[in-house]
Amino acid sequence: MKYLVLNGPNLNRLGKREPEIYGSETLDDVKHKCEVLVAQFEATVDFRQSNHEGQLIDWIHEAADTEVAGVVINPGAYTHTSIALRDAIASVDVPVIEVHISNIHAREAFRHESKLAAECVGQICGLGTFGYELALRKFLQ
Amino acid sequence: MKYLVLNGPNLNRLGKREPEIYGSETLDDVKHKCEVLVAQFEATVDFRQSNHEGQLIDWIHEAADTEVAGVVINPGAYTHTSIALRDAIASVDVPVIEVHISNIHAREAFRHESKLAAECVGQICGLGTFGYELALRKFLQ
Amino acid sequence: MKYLVLNGPNLNRLGKREPEIYGSETLDDVKHKCEVLVAQFEATVDFRQSNHEGQLIDWIHEAADTEVAGVVINPGAYTHTSIALRDAIASVDVPVIEVHISNIHAREAFRHESKLAAECVGQICGLGTFGYELALRKFLQ
Amino acid sequence: MKYLVLNGPNLNRLGKREPEIYGSETLDDVKHKCEVLVAQFEATVDFRQSNHEGQLIDWIHEAADTEVAGVVINPGAYTHTSIALRDAIASVDVPVIEVHISNIHAREAFRHESKLAAECVGQICGLGTFGYELALRKFLQ
Amino acid sequence: MKYLVLNGPNLNRLGKREPEIYGSETLDDVKHKCEVLVAQFEATVDFRQSNHEGQLIDWIHEAADTEVAGVVINPGAYTHTSIALRDAIASVDVPVIEVHISNIHAREAFRHESKLAAECVGQICGLGTFGYELALRKFLQ
Amino acid sequence: MKYLVLNGPNLNRLGKREPEIYGSETLDDVKHKCEVLVAQFEATVDFRQSNHEGQLIDWIHEAADTEVAGVVINPGAYTHTSIALRDAIASVDVPVIEVHISNIHAREAFRHESKLAAECVGQICGLGTFGYELALRKFLQ
Amino acid sequence: MKYLVLNGPNLNRLGKREPEIYGSETLDDVKHKCEVLVAQFEATVDFRQSNHEGQLIDWIHEAADTEVAGVVINPGAYTHTSIALRDAIASVDVPVIEVHISNIHAREAFRHESKLAAECVGQICGLGTFGYELALRKFLQ
Amino acid sequence: MKYLVLNGPNLNRLGKREPEIYGSETLDDVKHKCEVLVAQFEATVDFRQSNHEGQLIDWIHEAADTEVAGVVINPGAYTHTSIALRDAIASVDVPVIEVHISNIHAREAFRHESKLAAECVGQICGLGTFGYELALRKFLQ
Amino acid sequence: MKYLVLNGPNLNRLGKREPEIYGSETLDDVKHKCEVLVAQFEATVDFRQSNHEGQLIDWIHEAADTEVAGVVINPGAYTHTSIALRDAIASVDVPVIEVHISNIHAREAFRHESKLAAECVGQICGLGTFGYELALRKFLQ
Amino acid sequence: MKYLVLNGPNLNRLGKREPEIYGSETLDDVKHKCEVLVAQFEATVDFRQSNHEGQLIDWIHEAADTEVAGVVINPGAYTHTSIALRDAIASVDVPVIEVHISNIHAREAFRHESKLAAECVGQICGLGTFGYELALRKFLQ
Amino acid sequence: MKYLVLNGPNLNRLGKREPEIYGSETLDDVKHKCEVLVAQFEATVDFRQSNHEGQLIDWIHEAADTEVAGVVINPGAYTHTSIALRDAIASVDVPVIEVHISNIHAREAFRHESKLAAECVGQICGLGTFGYELALRKFLQ
Amino acid sequence: MKYLVLNGPNLNRLGKREPEIYGSETLDDVKHKCEVLVAQFEATVDFRQSNHEGQLIDWIHEAADTEVAGVVINPGAYTHTSIALRDAIASVDVPVIEVHISNIHAREAFRHESKLAAECVGQICGLGTFGYELALRKFLQ
Repeated sequence: MKYLVLNGPNLNRLGKREPEIYGSETLDDVKHKCEVLVAQFEATVDFRQSNHEGQLIDWIHEAADTEVAGVVINPGAYTHTSIALRDAIASVDVPVIEVHISNIHAREAFRHESKLAAECVGQICGLGTFGYELALRKFLQ
Repeated sequence: MKYLVLNGPNLNRLGKREPEIYGSETLDDVKHKCEVLVAQFEATVDFRQSNHEGQLIDWIHEAADTEVAGVVINPGAYTHTSIALRDAIASVDVPVIEVHISNIHAREAFRHESKLAAECVGQICGLGTFGYELALRKFLQ
Repeated sequence: MKYLVLNGPNLNRLGKREPEIYGSETLDDVKHKCEVLVAQFEATVDFRQSNHEGQLIDWIHEAADTEVAGVVINPGAYTHTSIALRDAIASVDVPVIEVHISNIHAREAFRHESKLAAECVGQICGLGTFGYELALRKFLQ
Repeated sequence: MKYLVLNGPNLNRLGKREPEIYGSETLDDVKHKCEVLVAQFEATVDFRQSNHEGQLIDWIHEAADTEVAGVVINPGAYTHTSIALRDAIASVDVPVIEVHISNIHAREAFRHESKLAAECVGQICGLGTFGYELALRKFLQ
Repeated sequence: MKYLVLNGPNLNRLGKREPEIYGSETLDDVKHKCEVLVAQFEATVDFRQSNHEGQLIDWIHEAADTEVAGVVINPGAYTHTSIALRDAIASVDVPVIEVHISNIHAREAFRHESKLAAECVGQICGLGTFGYELALRKFLQ
Repeated sequence: MKYLVLNGPNLNRLGKREPEIYGSETLDDVKHKCEVLVAQFEATVDFRQSNHEGQLIDWIHEAADTEVAGVVINPGAYTHTSIALRDAIASVDVPVIEVHISNIHAREAFRHESKLAAECVGQICGLGTFGYELALRKFLQ
Repeated sequence: MKYLVLNGPNLNRLGKREPEIYGSETLDDVKHKCEVLVAQFEATVDFRQSNHEGQLIDWIHEAADTEVAGVVINPGAYTHTSIALRDAIASVDVPVIEVHISNIHAREAFRHESKLAAECVGQICGLGTFGYELALRKFLQ
Repeated sequence: MKYLVLNGPNLNRLGKREPEIYGSETLDDVKHKCEVLVAQFEATVDFRQSNHEGQLIDWIHEAADTEVAGVVINPGAYTHTSIALRDAIASVDVPVIEVHISNIHAREAFRHESKLAAECVGQICGLGTFGYELALRKFLQ
Repeated sequence: MKYLVLNGPNLNRLGKREPEIYGSETLDDVKHKCEVLVAQFEATVDFRQSNHEGQLIDWIHEAADTEVAGVVINPGAYTHTSIALRDAIASVDVPVIEVHISNIHAREAFRHESKLAAECVGQICGLGTFGYELALRKFLQ
Repeated sequence: MKYLVLNGPNLNRLGKREPEIYGSETLDDVKHKCEVLVAQFEATVDFRQSNHEGQLIDWIHEAADTEVAGVVINPGAYTHTSIALRDAIASVDVPVIEVHISNIHAREAFRHESKLAAECVGQICGLGTFGYELALRKFLQ
Repeated sequence: MKYLVLNGPNLNRLGKREPEIYGSETLDDVKHKCEVLVAQFEATVDFRQSNHEGQLIDWIHEAADTEVAGVVINPGAYTHTSIALRDAIASVDVPVIEVHISNIHAREAFRHESKLAAECVGQICGLGTFGYELALRKFLQ
Repeated sequence: MKYLVLNGPNLNRLGKREPEIYGSETLDDVKHKCEVLVAQFEATVDFRQSNHEGQLIDWIHEAADTEVAGVVINPGAYTHTSIALRDAIASVDVPVIEVHISNIHAREAFRHESKLAAECVGQICGLGTFGYELALRKFLQ
């Protein structure tokens, strides 16, 4: 089984960026924790990041054309603006779970709404980077 | 370690109520799964349900006054209307995680907003009753 | 055949409360008229009132678990705020008709919207306490 | 006693139009049922339909100038747009009851609001064509 | 010089309709006062009323095709709903002044906005039926 | 094959009305171009105009009762206000295409929304009177 | 009989300010025309201007305390923002008519609403400086 | 003279709950201060708290049926959501004053609006627990 | 100890203005009552009124530069429009309490919001002119 | 003559993606049909797709710098979010026509508004992939 | 060359007022810096402050009537409320630049909108008191 | 000292694009002027443009990782839509100033709001390309 974990804009700065909101772990740390978890289930995970909306869409399409069993996506700020990403998710049969490290409902009002969530299986937010693992656990269940 | 799992209005009808949205498991099934999980971590869980907003508030206060290490709450429809429940969560030091069985973002617009989420640690939705277990795992981590 | 008539908050003060809006009949008068009507059809009616939202939800669940053929509900002010009551109605197979004594559309704007109506069979308003009888006639038809 | 039943736009297609919403009865069937009912009370009913807003206004004025004891109106889509019809109802002393065959609150948002209801005695919706009879019963009471 | 005075829906009931808002003069009284005024300036006035939106549009077009020097219109409730009337006014070169007998700004919120006013020369409201005469005076100036 | 082309309010003034927006062609010119086009496909077209909302509704019903294979409608300003026309389109099985000569999205905000479009097959706007021909081509395809 | 004509902010620049909107007459010209008119009726007019909201309020109070039979006010931009002026008008028994030189409904959206109009007798707009004379005529009637 | 002081949800946690907002006094301290004050005027006060909306409604009805001369209510979060409480206040003749310990206008936007205030005599907020005493003073005046 | 009581626009007309809303006391009566009260606490009060927003701002600044221990302000209609007054309050260290004689929440919607309250200590409304005394008592406490 | 047809995000999945909305034709099929059509008019068409907003902007600029006589664009989800694309269209002299395969007005509310349409010549929607041909016909006219 | 720098309400308290937002410079410091700058270009600057909206309007008119080459205005809180000031700017030919010391977009939502900016040449905000100098440099350029 | 000047979508067409709004200078002209200015302060400037949102984000991150002392950004249309750019600015310690050539407040309403400004130091708009130089001067101060 192969899983895809996608990270949107500014997540490459995790650990460097506003640690009071996002914590001090880096994205590599998260990648490592995900790899350890899925290895326990004899699966693999492909972990990527891009600041480009179009790139994220391309990767979702690619997931549909390869052997990906599930996508975990932290869409960063595109969560709140990208109908194109939403349509990409709707255009594939692969199940997608949306993850946010911080509790988006406890931040600015414009972060409360997700344009993508309605096309995802579900959403986890506010549980830190552990949320990535929980999302993968749902697929590995 | 003791945990409290609270269920709000109409969740007593789980399994009987709109199974195309909520699935066919009953609330007792969920209770059992939670007990099995926390037992693995040598913890206990207290699992309750009420249709009364005031009762849920009383229970949250009670959690603060007893040895509860974390509360998982599925507030049902009070999610969208109860500032009193929100204030109850804010009034205690016990961490609270909000869980929804269905993906509230894929349903009617009035179900998209949670009045409680900003005072919770985080929120899990759309991952079925497995979401209760994921929330407990966060506490058990 | 058994019918249930539920009355929400403040309807216990009918006759005493703002008679220029609600008339001078008491809730007991209404109960009596309903009983007389359904008796003509060899049916019975169970007539209740509560100021507690949770109680009204409990009674709707109870209707689903007993032999109730139809529920007439005057939800009082919960009409405009209670998604929990709405979900209770959606969670049972018993048909429900919403009744308002006054014409809610001729009053304050916040009384124009019913959170429950979409899950009911239909709604009658502004026809005084005679509306209870008309709703029962629909079931007795 | 003479009553007037007015039907607005597209109701001439009742039975032919979207039967999953409006049922398979025709407007002539409804007319017949109304005539049978009021005859029991030794009254008569004048049953009309028009797609023209101005025509409906003319008829309401006419009701005021003739011996009409009450008007039942199903304003069709003019319910949601016609302040002119509202003013026509306000301009006469004849009591008017608004009827909708379908439950307008369970349909598109733009059908939830009635521009006319505030000037009517009351409103019945969602009880099928039986709603016409219930409205007449209110007058015949 | 010829002028046209158009009256929209329900104005045929002037004097009979809600006299506390509109006064006890009839539309014939207003017609007479207008005729007396314009006669002093050796002009004539054509004074009409219809409850039909389409008829009012036809008359505005007719004004453009005949020798009409100015139109005074009291559009009644179409003021607040008719973009078609607005377009009719925009489609002709004849200047149009909008008149309301009552002060629409002191009534329900939905009467505050005029869909037509932006395409008229100007608007007079709240000055009673004397407003018709003032509008004509503007043309006769 | 027979087609119906309906034109709403103020389109009788095409060519005379605001030519900077609508061009200098008259409605007769458009009619002629439509007749020439459909004749090439051995079909006929019935081309009508009315300023009366009720008349347009009557014609749509008539289309359902005669041999009409498709309706092209330029609803004029009723586009933005008429739910009754929308319901008329929904009440018939004949496919309807909405056409606007000007680009309604480049004009006032209240012209951006069409109350009818959701019940039509589709919409063409901003392509001048050539839009009528394109709509007919879709039917003739 | 004595009348008061009040002019709000920026009207001292009439004739100098945006003549394509307000014309080339100065405020002194308007004053003169008003004086000529009321003199015909053996009345006098007191004509003032201020850019200070508080000054305009003081003058309205003064009108109540002196022999003023009516106030004509062109409140300039305070029309759209000043509840204090509105309350001043409500606090006196002197009738007030609101006048605007330009057609406020054909300008920016924020100029469409008058905070004062509901407490005035009525409003005249778009009829140029002739509107002042028409307002006075209403009082002199 | 007997007065009733009602406290809504979460006020039982006063002193324990967010002391930076609500201070460190407990509800018992407030009760004591109220008792001392009214005793000076030879009156008594009945001081209660509940987290249940229905209970608060029941108590307001009870006040109407007993010798209560005035009610002081701190409705907690029900301030912002409960039309049922509002109707309870409207349904009794006993005067009610609304009190808030914190300045609700300096907190989250959803705390600015009170659903109850319009049916109360008045409202005091932001003056700490001294506000209870001021409200009682108004009754004792 | 010295206190400042400021009164905004139209309060000079208290007693003369809409007595059904504001009562028949004059502002001098209120001044007298305030002076009597603070004299009991060996303090003085400076009582002023102005219709000019700028004047009220100047006075608040003056309070900061003199020995004023607290300001009670009834901002009249500037309550609902003046961010400048709000900033004036924020710019000084003197505590300010907002008072309204009438219950602003039971009046027009535009009177429900105070632009100033968030920068004040608190607000009292609906308790008549006694509210001034209660506000002073808070300072004198 | 050369034309450019641009396709936005997710259109590369046409035929694979939600065929109940978009049909089973692939984008290559559409390309072929466009090429056949313009070849009849001795013109050529350049047919492209990208999921990258920036790429689409680059191509529109390129159209301005080469010999392109007209652009047909199906902007996919960028229709509803991209002011940058709108500005790109405004920044070139090449005429642009917007095309949607599905009827965007019969889908979710957020798909009803086009951010681009106001800067295009016009818009065609709901006529399937035939809409591309109709748009090209407008240019070829 | 002569320039005018206008400062609105509460700016007289600069340095004393909320230094964490506005810094510790006084308005005299700013005046001095402006004088030094323009002196380098052999120009003069007239630097004024008022808390009175009407006074600021008077000064803008005065600028039009004297030799002022440009106005720099920091309108304080009138930025967000004063259409009268906006009209004053529109009524003169002198160019005006709006300056804010703090970043109004990083503060409360009601400070984001400027009622004046659309009639100014441009706006500078968030660059501290250096913004005054930058605005003058634009004029001196 | 090194500075970065970033230009967003469509700014590559400066001088060619809508010169009545943006003037006839090209982006190279602006670049040259910036270089001349900073050279006077013995600093350098890196001047870039991209139509790709992701590219602009990458560059802001790069600024944080290199020796950049300040960023001037003209985000073009991404100003109004890109929360991802906003987060990029928030994720770095480098100060950023937002510049717009035209006065965005005098254009369409959707251009009035900047999603980025709250995370920038400040904003300059409407001062033409001179705004770039003023922003750099702030850094060079």
